[in-house]
Amino acid sequence: MKTLLQVDFPYTGPFGDEMTTAMKELAESIAQEPGFIWKVWTENPDTQEAGGIYLFEDEASARAYLEKHTARLMGFGIPHVNGKVFGVNEALSAIDNGPVSLS
Amino acid sequence: MKTLLQVDFPYTGPFGDEMTTAMKELAESIAQEPGFIWKVWTENPDTQEAGGIYLFEDEASARAYLEKHTARLMGFGIPHVNGKVFGVNEALSAIDNGPVSLS
Repeated sequence: MKTLLQVDFPYTGPFGDEMTTAMKELAESIAQEPGFIWKVWTENPDTQEAGGIYLFEDEASARAYLEKHTARLMGFGIPHVNGKVFGVNEALSAIDNGPVSLS
Repeated sequence: MKTLLQVDFPYTGPFGDEMTTAMKELAESIAQEPGFIWKVWTENPDTQEAGGIYLFEDEASARAYLEKHTARLMGFGIPHVNGKVFGVNEALSAIDNGPVSLS
């Protein structure tokens, strides 16, 4: 079952184009994770937060990635990471053009 | 600038196909909201939570919708709603197949 992973955490930058430069290699490696379908990278300089919304093929892949990514972020000095795993309601998402059937 | 809205809240059901039946009309109305691009509907019977990940054309649309939706959910008896608004890093999302350039 398609699984959505919702991650956010305190983040002091860099934001915007500088974030792109700093995180490009990480983004390329994430695309290779088992069960990974897509990630939307999120950032908010006003609240000093960042994160990501991920779609995985199944819950096991999402949970394994969350464990790995949380450890990595804490290694970057991030004090805590909020991670939530959800099933996707594909029928309701389809009504709202939700991109869950892409691969 | 494309804006991602992340919403989750305590939810005791219905889940799955029953949720689809119960929420179909709401999903159809959400598709008509100003600035709305897509929503992925999320649900977790284990943690008794549900929510949604939305993409909007701009921050003002996302914030107006969050205010409206929070009031609606509280009217359904939901005790509190977690809503976070983020900018989207489109360049990093593109590397990870993030569906932010769809319309």
